[in-house]
Amino acid sequence: MALVNLNADMGESYGRYRLGNDEELIKHVLSANIACGYHAADPGTIHSTVKLARDHGVEIGAHVAYPDLAGFGRRKMGLSEQEVFEITVYQIGAVKAFCKAENVPLNHVKPHGELYLTAAVDAAVARGVVRALKAVDDRLLLFLVGSVVDAECRRFGITMINEGYVDLEYNSDGSLDLDKKREARDPVEVARNAVSLVEKGGRHALDGSWIVLPTQTICMHGDMANGIELARKTREELETRGHKVVKSRQVASAVV
Amino acid sequence: MALVNLNADMGESYGRYRLGNDEELIKHVLSANIACGYHAADPGTIHSTVKLARDHGVEIGAHVAYPDLAGFGRRKMGLSEQEVFEITVYQIGAVKAFCKAENVPLNHVKPHGELYLTAAVDAAVARGVVRALKAVDDRLLLFLVGSVVDAECRRFGITMINEGYVDLEYNSDGSLDLDKKREARDPVEVARNAVSLVEKGGRHALDGSWIVLPTQTICMHGDMANGIELARKTREELETRGHKVVKSRQVASAVV
Amino acid sequence: MALVNLNADMGESYGRYRLGNDEELIKHVLSANIACGYHAADPGTIHSTVKLARDHGVEIGAHVAYPDLAGFGRRKMGLSEQEVFEITVYQIGAVKAFCKAENVPLNHVKPHGELYLTAAVDAAVARGVVRALKAVDDRLLLFLVGSVVDAECRRFGITMINEGYVDLEYNSDGSLDLDKKREARDPVEVARNAVSLVEKGGRHALDGSWIVLPTQTICMHGDMANGIELARKTREELETRGHKVVKSRQVASAVV
Amino acid sequence: MALVNLNADMGESYGRYRLGNDEELIKHVLSANIACGYHAADPGTIHSTVKLARDHGVEIGAHVAYPDLAGFGRRKMGLSEQEVFEITVYQIGAVKAFCKAENVPLNHVKPHGELYLTAAVDAAVARGVVRALKAVDDRLLLFLVGSVVDAECRRFGITMINEGYVDLEYNSDGSLDLDKKREARDPVEVARNAVSLVEKGGRHALDGSWIVLPTQTICMHGDMANGIELARKTREELETRGHKVVKSRQVASAVV
Repeated sequence: MALVNLNADMGESYGRYRLGNDEELIKHVLSANIACGYHAADPGTIHSTVKLARDHGVEIGAHVAYPDLAGFGRRKMGLSEQEVFEITVYQIGAVKAFCKAENVPLNHVKPHGELYLTAAVDAAVARGVVRALKAVDDRLLLFLVGSVVDAECRRFGITMINEGYVDLEYNSDGSLDLDKKREARDPVEVARNAVSLVEKGGRHALDGSWIVLPTQTICMHGDMANGIELARKTREELETRGHKVVKSRQVASAVV
Repeated sequence: MALVNLNADMGESYGRYRLGNDEELIKHVLSANIACGYHAADPGTIHSTVKLARDHGVEIGAHVAYPDLAGFGRRKMGLSEQEVFEITVYQIGAVKAFCKAENVPLNHVKPHGELYLTAAVDAAVARGVVRALKAVDDRLLLFLVGSVVDAECRRFGITMINEGYVDLEYNSDGSLDLDKKREARDPVEVARNAVSLVEKGGRHALDGSWIVLPTQTICMHGDMANGIELARKTREELETRGHKVVKSRQVASAVV
Repeated sequence: MALVNLNADMGESYGRYRLGNDEELIKHVLSANIACGYHAADPGTIHSTVKLARDHGVEIGAHVAYPDLAGFGRRKMGLSEQEVFEITVYQIGAVKAFCKAENVPLNHVKPHGELYLTAAVDAAVARGVVRALKAVDDRLLLFLVGSVVDAECRRFGITMINEGYVDLEYNSDGSLDLDKKREARDPVEVARNAVSLVEKGGRHALDGSWIVLPTQTICMHGDMANGIELARKTREELETRGHKVVKSRQVASAVV
Repeated sequence: MALVNLNADMGESYGRYRLGNDEELIKHVLSANIACGYHAADPGTIHSTVKLARDHGVEIGAHVAYPDLAGFGRRKMGLSEQEVFEITVYQIGAVKAFCKAENVPLNHVKPHGELYLTAAVDAAVARGVVRALKAVDDRLLLFLVGSVVDAECRRFGITMINEGYVDLEYNSDGSLDLDKKREARDPVEVARNAVSLVEKGGRHALDGSWIVLPTQTICMHGDMANGIELARKTREELETRGHKVVKSRQVASAVV
């Protein structure tokens, strides 16, 4: 029996634009990563999403990103460690203020899109993010993965929650294959991926090789064609097999 | 002998663009209103300005504004009370995070430009701002003026610090004449205006009529042609006449 | 038998965000108003929408707006006549370049949202828009309505195409009731409104009073719940009654 | 005796922010590269700079950039060829509309900052830019340098004007050393660099090696500490030695 957390990206609407189905998805996860206005979200969206998470008793995280609304935070941007530190402090602060307004704690930080990918492999970018958590609130958990950022977390005393993906495929080098994202996936297969991560600490890559991924939290994508179904089935399968789907704070406590 | 605070707007640079002479001006004031990224400032500018204020022992305030970088927050924008609440929470949170990172408290909030002008006369806009302070931290002081916002502050339990201007002229209805702003002003006249506000609780308007302005803080503009000299002379004149130029927190304590 | 044009707002997606169903709606109208990047659209969206219009032989217009992506161009903004002139020139130029790239003419300009509403009643704003058409290409048609902007068009030699609405209600002062927009409407009633505009030159307001609206083009909203059906039915009804649904350029020629 | 053009970047102010001294610098150059609103400039700035150039009989170019106002277009951004094409078409169109409004032709396009650097070495980025000129107006000249973009220009029938720098140093691989930019430079040395480019078709790099740079236009930076003096001295020295400082269009004609 293992403890595992389920998280999802939320609050990615912007002004007139709607994205995702947060009201449904939030029923199936324990942690919500809320966009901060850089890759998505305006202040009103952040506010309503914080309230939604609070109403469902779901943990709240700041889903920090590069400043690129037009590119949805998915384009490469050459920011220095210091710039990454500063945009991360700014975004954490903005979401934290809405948490304070609604009387709930800010629990974690998860980089989004290209910032996630670079923080996972580039020590300077990782350090910019980790230092921001250290500076604003060193009890914040960091949802990310990889040895580079893990080393920075240890250095600055930040607790990282290892994240795994189940509705995407991995390449043999451990990177995610992002080409087919957003298409509907087979719920049975996705749930099986989750079980593999939790029970075996890894998954098979596209070429059949084994990727070691000691996973503490699993990301469920709400903007997949059948994302709600995938989240529901994954959670059900994990619980059926006797695992406990819990908050990330509980995972972190169990580790320490 | 009276207690009075001197404040100045700071941190209004943006990326490649420099504005003001914060390093000099900060020597002459007790409170800095730091731009939050909406009318001016990027995260790096906020960060360095928070450090500058900390190093000078100067109080830090969030200089919240309408989202209008191109118009420097000086153009009219039709935001609802709720939208004003949300952009204010967002901006306070962003600056507060840099204060936390540098281990100094966020002391106050001052609306900028058009948001200042509308909050002073429009109850819905005033309420949006005041509710944001209440929601994020009800010990934050609000630098503003006027009976409309004063009523909202009393309703929500927020302490307002009445602000007066000495390097601009007032119209007979109490509004500011903004046509000649940025030109060099006579330091002796500006200092005399400050003395009038502090000792008589008001100033003469452009047409000679008397404007009642019970002033607790005086705003010094750093982007006036001779702003540094005006601030220095104003402070000197007030102290020469036996008044104490103090932090706004001290003014607030004395009132209560 | 009358000549009348049908137009629709298109190209309002932005980055990751999708809005409207342009591919379907474009089959039912003769003119497309393409967002220019100020209230909606990025360069890629403008480009693909220009190609869509070209492929369907539909006239292309620049749907110019206030610079307010977060508010979708629907919030009040206090821009001077000169600022309105300059943002309009900028936006027309941007869309015109994509027309040049795809070898189709730019046919018209239609202000969006709050810019539409203010240009219709405020002479300075109307003049800013009209002068921009005059400056960039005085053969551009202006889709708008009202005596204020009509006077400016006559003064600068710009041809205005009077626009009427059929899927919204009018207040007795001729303004649009925007409270219930986006809800599904009865296609029969909407088509009847169109017939009234074309045959009688007006419609009944919410309070039953008669509004004189000599209409040359009718706007169909693609983001109504049943917008495609409304456009199809309106066009069908007009043609059944013997009217000719034509390009705005043909309407303009018939008038002169 | 050689024909050579002098160009300068202009119109880089934004809203409340002033940058450069265009009014002085424009007296010393023949071509102005005007910012398009992506790395700098608002529509009003573009308009007034187009008028300034027209009044001085100076050629106008669109100074296209990545969409990064906060980073002044100097940060790396991962845009695809298609995205580069589209942002370039958009920006060219915007500036071209102001040229039309002021009845002057748009003469050329020059990428700014990071877009300049990537277009010079990355074939996909170069192609995005070159295709945009081809699409909007194939008579537009492209100010840039290097074999990669040269090949794309030949492929699409666009005329490139080779640009050389005199107030910056080159590394031995032909790239510019951007570390010391903005500091005051020795006018005599800068003018000597210009003479070297024009008479010998190259310059010595920082390590003393020779860089081949067949230069048709020289860029003068207005935001150097003594930029005006550098431009004046460079032009004077070139003319003293019998060279003709001419418009880029004249250089282009001489070549063909």
